[in-house]
Amino acid sequence: MEELVVIKVGGNIIDNEVALQSFLKSFAAINKHKILIHGGGKIATEISKGLGIEAQMIDGRRVTDAETLKIVTMVYGGLINKNIVASLQSKKCNAIGLTGADGGIVLANKRPIKNGIDYGYVGDIKEVKSTVLNTFIVAGFTPIIAPLSLDDNGSMLNTNADTMASEIACAMSKHYKVNLVYCFELKGVLRDFEDKNSVIEEITPSTYQQLKEEGIISKGMIPKLDNAFAAINKGVHSVIIAHADNLLSIINEQKSLGTVLKA
Amino acid sequence: MEELVVIKVGGNIIDNEVALQSFLKSFAAINKHKILIHGGGKIATEISKGLGIEAQMIDGRRVTDAETLKIVTMVYGGLINKNIVASLQSKKCNAIGLTGADGGIVLANKRPIKNGIDYGYVGDIKEVKSTVLNTFIVAGFTPIIAPLSLDDNGSMLNTNADTMASEIACAMSKHYKVNLVYCFELKGVLRDFEDKNSVIEEITPSTYQQLKEEGIISKGMIPKLDNAFAAINKGVHSVIIAHADNLLSIINEQKSLGTVLKA
Repeated sequence: MEELVVIKVGGNIIDNEVALQSFLKSFAAINKHKILIHGGGKIATEISKGLGIEAQMIDGRRVTDAETLKIVTMVYGGLINKNIVASLQSKKCNAIGLTGADGGIVLANKRPIKNGIDYGYVGDIKEVKSTVLNTFIVAGFTPIIAPLSLDDNGSMLNTNADTMASEIACAMSKHYKVNLVYCFELKGVLRDFEDKNSVIEEITPSTYQQLKEEGIISKGMIPKLDNAFAAINKGVHSVIIAHADNLLSIINEQKSLGTVLKA
Repeated sequence: MEELVVIKVGGNIIDNEVALQSFLKSFAAINKHKILIHGGGKIATEISKGLGIEAQMIDGRRVTDAETLKIVTMVYGGLINKNIVASLQSKKCNAIGLTGADGGIVLANKRPIKNGIDYGYVGDIKEVKSTVLNTFIVAGFTPIIAPLSLDDNGSMLNTNADTMASEIACAMSKHYKVNLVYCFELKGVLRDFEDKNSVIEEITPSTYQQLKEEGIISKGMIPKLDNAFAAINKGVHSVIIAHADNLLSIINEQKSLGTVLKA
């Protein structure tokens, strides 16, 4: 089976033009089949503010009302996605920018109202059409995917980028040996948040339990790791959480930098 | 040679949700290979205003400064393009949304400063990569293309949608018998602007000269028709200018509605 690298790059890198260009240079140089899923960053929030649209939050989670859906469709599907594509093209990477709507590659259901909480136009993924997505790869394109999915009524839905990445990685495991890499601004999952070099090199389901019980892994890292282990259970070969700067060494030179999750 | 229909839909239809959905229903029902190029509409101007970005005009033409380029990338490449794609997917048309940057399909040069006028980030098309664009069609996708092109430095460029449509139609003539259709809110080129039914059924290069001299064709219609005749000279089979409502009758039933341009 051929290898495919599915890479998620987060908002903190998207928001920093120098870090983003450096990341894209590494991404362009990856000598394997590859897919990039990008997050949103702060640009959507800034543009919403500029237009006088107040961010609605429930329990610390953003609610995607109709106006916010327009903003994320513009910013994620347009501004960020197309600027990444244009930059990669100039770096000799034959990128094409997609959302879940394009070719109907990522289908979702609008999240149902639960305990009185309506998240609005947020998508829970129901299907990734891996054969359609693979058409682009086989034709020599590198898909760059924005965190937006499509519902049955022809509406875009705002979708968590980490989940997009893990669902896409799972679905593509039918066609490839898939390595899923979450790139962010830290060197990996840290044992001590104050020490940026205290990277936990490997996490297994049993050490994950232990790390959670000890409180070493908490808060925002838990849904990320839950997603990652779910992906491994569904056929993804490995999940790596690493600094964007180390991407090329990890993929092309197979250096063990960052945190590797194993079954 | 197989047939391909290249359709341009303008801003007035994009701005009217009822007209747009009706147009997309017709577009989805076209039983030939097809490409859609869409214009921008007023949404970009409204969002610019909302964000306090003043439109700069020189001789009645909009200047695309860096901030305006961001807006058109968001609105044309994101909001309008992806909403069209999502709507077409729900109408069983396997649409994918593209800009000139995706797959590097439309390459352009930033328009040079001429007579002291700098239009900013505006692209003059230098190449349409028809073989790359055809990859999508052969794979069963319907390309939906926003009026944005790519320069050699990895920057997006704002590009006239009529010109995008005619350049794409010309380039695709290597692979298909191409019919180019400009859809708008009138029934065709009118002999008398006050009489919406006074459609000129056919224009040839010689009658075009005459109609211009008589002042019957003037202003905004001239660059549109110049583009159209240029396309015919470069191998496009026919150019039709017609009301969006008549699209399906023209293409599927080959009814002669609208204005047909011939060599």
